[in-house]
Amino acid sequence: MELMSFSAQKFIDQNRDRLLEELFEFLRIPSISTLPEHRPDIDRAAHFVESSLLDAGMENVEIIPTEGHPLVYADWLHAPGIPTVLCYGHYDVQPPDPLDQWVTQPFEPAVRDGNIYARGAADDKGQIYIHFKAVEALRSLYGRPPVNLKFLVEGEEEIGGKSIAMFIAENGEKLKADVALVSDTAMYQPNMPTLCIGLRGLVYMEWEATGPARDLHSGLYGGAAPNPVFGLVELLSKAKDAGGVIQIPGVYDDVKAPAPAELESWARLPFDEKEFLAREVGSTALTGEKGYSVFHRTWARPTLEVHGIAGGFTGAGAKTVIPTQATAKVSLRLVPEQDPEKIIRQVRDFVKANTPAGIQVQVRVLSAAPATLVDPDDAAIRVAAEAFGEVFGQPTVFIRSGGSIPVVGDFARHLSMPTVMMGFGLPDDGLHSPNEKFCLENYYKGILAVVHFLEKLAA
Amino acid sequence: MELMSFSAQKFIDQNRDRLLEELFEFLRIPSISTLPEHRPDIDRAAHFVESSLLDAGMENVEIIPTEGHPLVYADWLHAPGIPTVLCYGHYDVQPPDPLDQWVTQPFEPAVRDGNIYARGAADDKGQIYIHFKAVEALRSLYGRPPVNLKFLVEGEEEIGGKSIAMFIAENGEKLKADVALVSDTAMYQPNMPTLCIGLRGLVYMEWEATGPARDLHSGLYGGAAPNPVFGLVELLSKAKDAGGVIQIPGVYDDVKAPAPAELESWARLPFDEKEFLAREVGSTALTGEKGYSVFHRTWARPTLEVHGIAGGFTGAGAKTVIPTQATAKVSLRLVPEQDPEKIIRQVRDFVKANTPAGIQVQVRVLSAAPATLVDPDDAAIRVAAEAFGEVFGQPTVFIRSGGSIPVVGDFARHLSMPTVMMGFGLPDDGLHSPNEKFCLENYYKGILAVVHFLEKLAA
Repeated sequence: MELMSFSAQKFIDQNRDRLLEELFEFLRIPSISTLPEHRPDIDRAAHFVESSLLDAGMENVEIIPTEGHPLVYADWLHAPGIPTVLCYGHYDVQPPDPLDQWVTQPFEPAVRDGNIYARGAADDKGQIYIHFKAVEALRSLYGRPPVNLKFLVEGEEEIGGKSIAMFIAENGEKLKADVALVSDTAMYQPNMPTLCIGLRGLVYMEWEATGPARDLHSGLYGGAAPNPVFGLVELLSKAKDAGGVIQIPGVYDDVKAPAPAELESWARLPFDEKEFLAREVGSTALTGEKGYSVFHRTWARPTLEVHGIAGGFTGAGAKTVIPTQATAKVSLRLVPEQDPEKIIRQVRDFVKANTPAGIQVQVRVLSAAPATLVDPDDAAIRVAAEAFGEVFGQPTVFIRSGGSIPVVGDFARHLSMPTVMMGFGLPDDGLHSPNEKFCLENYYKGILAVVHFLEKLAA
Repeated sequence: MELMSFSAQKFIDQNRDRLLEELFEFLRIPSISTLPEHRPDIDRAAHFVESSLLDAGMENVEIIPTEGHPLVYADWLHAPGIPTVLCYGHYDVQPPDPLDQWVTQPFEPAVRDGNIYARGAADDKGQIYIHFKAVEALRSLYGRPPVNLKFLVEGEEEIGGKSIAMFIAENGEKLKADVALVSDTAMYQPNMPTLCIGLRGLVYMEWEATGPARDLHSGLYGGAAPNPVFGLVELLSKAKDAGGVIQIPGVYDDVKAPAPAELESWARLPFDEKEFLAREVGSTALTGEKGYSVFHRTWARPTLEVHGIAGGFTGAGAKTVIPTQATAKVSLRLVPEQDPEKIIRQVRDFVKANTPAGIQVQVRVLSAAPATLVDPDDAAIRVAAEAFGEVFGQPTVFIRSGGSIPVVGDFARHLSMPTVMMGFGLPDDGLHSPNEKFCLENYYKGILAVVHFLEKLAA
């Protein structure tokens, strides 16, 4: 490790307690974005972010109102000829329920067994706070950051992030940078520096089937009247076969397979399928396309899932009805090169061609975002991988995630820049669950890693 | 028409308003058998039946507690050497939802266009009330009924009628009669006296699919984790093909085809398939097995229907979850010679053999009853057909119904007697639907028809 990060280590050692107590202050704010009664906490969290950025020496710090929750912007642009980094994170959190499963209160952070327990500890307050403290460390040590910096921190990530998407689309010049830095993912396993370079896209829909004009007696009409529940069942069963292969024509046309080198690197990752099944999935068998590994199936193959279904009589007991309506929440996860708009057209064509007689099916699209894939040979990604690896003393691995972080796609589309997804979480952090945690050492080492990345980028 | 029914007509003319207002009182009781919170209304309805039977001059009136909802029994047995008739009906009703589709409130009966609108107006309060009022008319006119009478009225018809089935099986002597009279069916069309001589049986089940131990993120696990919603969809889609043919092995083994003469009589019934589709079903196409008429499909072929389905996230908006559970309400309608217990075994075998990997499916049977078929040449049936025809001025037609009235099977099995299914409903009464109605004139003429039938039976 270079001299400068050695100094950063000293800064951390000297400020250990303060760095933790300040993060605790942030974690104590119950900034739950989905619950309207927490709107004042959302504002408190935005102001906390504003103060933290000012303390770190950032300039032009502003709280930007939106139709939803405010964005916080800041910049420091006094390093001509040196790259500009846009740091992103979110200050909002998921609801903490079920409350009775928390060992300590979700908004009273506590340290146990080397972990910080609190809602938002890993997702994402602890991780965006790493960015703030890295900039503060650089200022404290050298009076200024080594690169140009912009910050964009949002408060709607857990509820769809519509405001930031609009803001990015409309503020290309203001947000222009060479690379984005996002710390909102996890390391593959403890002490294994990990860059996420791929995310799946998502098309989320409602499929609503309607049949008879009114509820019909299933005895009197059964055998002659169309049943929209069964019609929807038929349609869904045709959309994907039992082997997990999507049957919507054209869906696989643009699927781009990972490069052989990437597949090889996945095969080298430690992975125990039995343990994954038992400890993470908690079922009797895994499913999915034959001939593809779990990584391949969850990271780089499109999937079709039904998230929920409702129709007809669902109360206790029996009602002998042929109902009028049934609805399913259906999504497709997309992989690189699949175009959400094309997929939506293919879905609509499929539904039209396969709707059973006597049934009408309406497809409503709730959201659509493409997959993103970052080139691991991009200069900034290489620098990030080196810095991350040097701080943790191990080579950095590249993984993908099956989930979706739409803002990463927005950075690519509207700002034409790659994103370094340098996450310091761990797979068992329990995001969105009770007893969310964040590894205390990853908090401190994360500050070092970001400091080191920015230094190396400047060099 | 004979003299006595002429007098009965006079009774009706003189008591028209009172007869309607008293029925309204009955209809105002929301005696929804499937909803536990309506248990007090069930008791109120049972007491209302008790009072009505006392008012009609019946003796030994008793409310009989059961493990479920109470039965009401009564008799009048002072006509030695004359036949005994067992009158059956039910005081419970279906839930009224969806409430917002009712023009007037389901439990505030209203007359519009010659119809009584209320939940239970036709099914079955209005029809069993015809029996009470026919007996009252006979008493008012002649001081006594012309035949021996027994009444057995239940409060569980809409939820499977377990208690009455047990009671009939255990009380053969108490209930012994020559013929049962049930008014819980419909006339084929307005003013066409109709006896129903066949009913389908019913096996009603819940199929519950479970998958992962906890809700999973569909991005991180989609492509590897089993999804119980899709698993249930797969299983249901295999149970019946798009042509309406049930795919559960063995289900058609014991299906008995109707006699050629019966099929010919169905072909003579006025029937316009386009009008049936447009006015009754209210959809764009009929469905069901190829090569069978609508009558054959709905009266004499088994069917499989899904009455409701629920699982996963069904709120507004999007949640990217692979849920833990999904449940469907599934029934099979049975035709003569099909044994419910054998069908249940076949269903269980099918589910076991076809449950997708990683999913568990539990089949819970909520009710089971065989089909019934009455001999149209039975003496009592012939008398009923004559009386019905004379009151309505047209020959009586014989039809079947696709619905199920399990008690008719119990009467045949345990009491060895035929059932006269003399129903005064109409096909568009909307049983189990919003705006259920009962033709006002059929209410009054129904009283006449029952009076006339009992008179003729005594002669």
